[in-house]
Amino acid sequence: MTQTTPRRIMRTTAHGSESEADQLVTEAPLEMRLGNTPLAVLMRTPGDDADLLVGFAITEGIVLGPDEVAKVQAIEGDPEENRWEIVLAEGVAIDPEQFRRNLYTSSSCGVCGKASIDALKVGAPEPPSGPLLDPATVLGLPSKMRRLQATFEVTGGQHAAAVFDAGGRLLAVKEDVGRHNAVDKVIGSLARQQWPIGEVILLVSGRVSFEIVQKAAVAGIPVVGGVSAASSLAVETAEELGLTVIGFLRDESFNVYAGHERISGT
Amino acid sequence: MTQTTPRRIMRTTAHGSESEADQLVTEAPLEMRLGNTPLAVLMRTPGDDADLLVGFAITEGIVLGPDEVAKVQAIEGDPEENRWEIVLAEGVAIDPEQFRRNLYTSSSCGVCGKASIDALKVGAPEPPSGPLLDPATVLGLPSKMRRLQATFEVTGGQHAAAVFDAGGRLLAVKEDVGRHNAVDKVIGSLARQQWPIGEVILLVSGRVSFEIVQKAAVAGIPVVGGVSAASSLAVETAEELGLTVIGFLRDESFNVYAGHERISGT
Repeated sequence: MTQTTPRRIMRTTAHGSESEADQLVTEAPLEMRLGNTPLAVLMRTPGDDADLLVGFAITEGIVLGPDEVAKVQAIEGDPEENRWEIVLAEGVAIDPEQFRRNLYTSSSCGVCGKASIDALKVGAPEPPSGPLLDPATVLGLPSKMRRLQATFEVTGGQHAAAVFDAGGRLLAVKEDVGRHNAVDKVIGSLARQQWPIGEVILLVSGRVSFEIVQKAAVAGIPVVGGVSAASSLAVETAEELGLTVIGFLRDESFNVYAGHERISGT
Repeated sequence: MTQTTPRRIMRTTAHGSESEADQLVTEAPLEMRLGNTPLAVLMRTPGDDADLLVGFAITEGIVLGPDEVAKVQAIEGDPEENRWEIVLAEGVAIDPEQFRRNLYTSSSCGVCGKASIDALKVGAPEPPSGPLLDPATVLGLPSKMRRLQATFEVTGGQHAAAVFDAGGRLLAVKEDVGRHNAVDKVIGSLARQQWPIGEVILLVSGRVSFEIVQKAAVAGIPVVGGVSAASSLAVETAEELGLTVIGFLRDESFNVYAGHERISGT
């Protein structure tokens, strides 16, 4: 399957309608299995599926790192490649029942922001103390991501996530119809090249919510930025875990919500 | 808890930083139970929680309508009101195990777009054949929603969903940090007043994905509009089920992706 799907649409104004050719972002389910156990079904844009699986397995705490994964592969006989399997490395044993979605948030000690953060603290590694970022470098990140958002220009329907090093060099960028998938794809892509990921910045094209900070924390990423707003729980979590959260990152300015010691001059 | 959370931030430009008072959108987990069985944990903005529970129960196919719910209530002894319970009406019996998230998409007959649509066809009622909408009415909807997005103006971090009648009259509008939650809140709010919901339009502040169309279909809503793009699977699903999907709904124009017979003049 391709990342875009052609479709004839009716473009309509107050004065009438006309039929036009258009391109939609492709959305299709992906079933992820660990051995014979279904772990999750994600609605994603096809492409970079191996990165998605490795990234999801890391950020959801299913594996501790890419070295625990021997391989990921489409299950034979599925022509659409919507069924994928994670094969664990030799000697790695995992109880799939233990690792369901909402692991961190459905902790038995009570459902509240504090409990969610406490549960995450147990599962996330200590973040790197750096990087120390120059504000001018940070301000330049969104335009670097946008230049590489190939599909976005066509469909207008993709979320993007990118990872940069401390100097603002783009290390990876991925797009997906789902914002969490874009984050998992970019983290998976980078984790397969370097682990631990190190002193990098994760940038998302939208909002910074708790789940985005959770995924970054579990992957050992110290800085999370978003083009739009950050939520209260995202910020409280980042503060407790020692991560930096940046929001409303535009060409002229940005807001630092937590961990401003990683931004020089603040 | 309130819908916004005050926070001091560092507003940073290339020339320096200053500390400012800001308001973040509040995000907190809500655990939903059916009797003693946890159904789901949602990360939501507190407020309108009863609407959220009724809406979620309907759009996820847990109940067939609001009359199957006797009441929804916060579980006693939780001062933060993050644990809620759905109490079924007398004579209604449901196996909670049967109704997990991803019910429609993890069908055993195969994971592909076609299987997702087929499974949904079984669960969704026949949509109403109307309404017949005037394009000028449709063009006026986003500004009506924006005028009532109270929190958005403060935090910039909320998604919104609204329901309108065929004449463009706003029936309900809700906001939430999560886009699916905003849809469930607005559907729940309306379902508690009128059922079936009838020939209305659901408008979302973002993209139209499969899950948004799925929720509308199960709730019997015939028209779904979004301010941004629609995905391939959302459009294919709407076409198969006889729903109308509108995207890029802005002040000047909109795109009709499926079901254009409900738009006069197309």
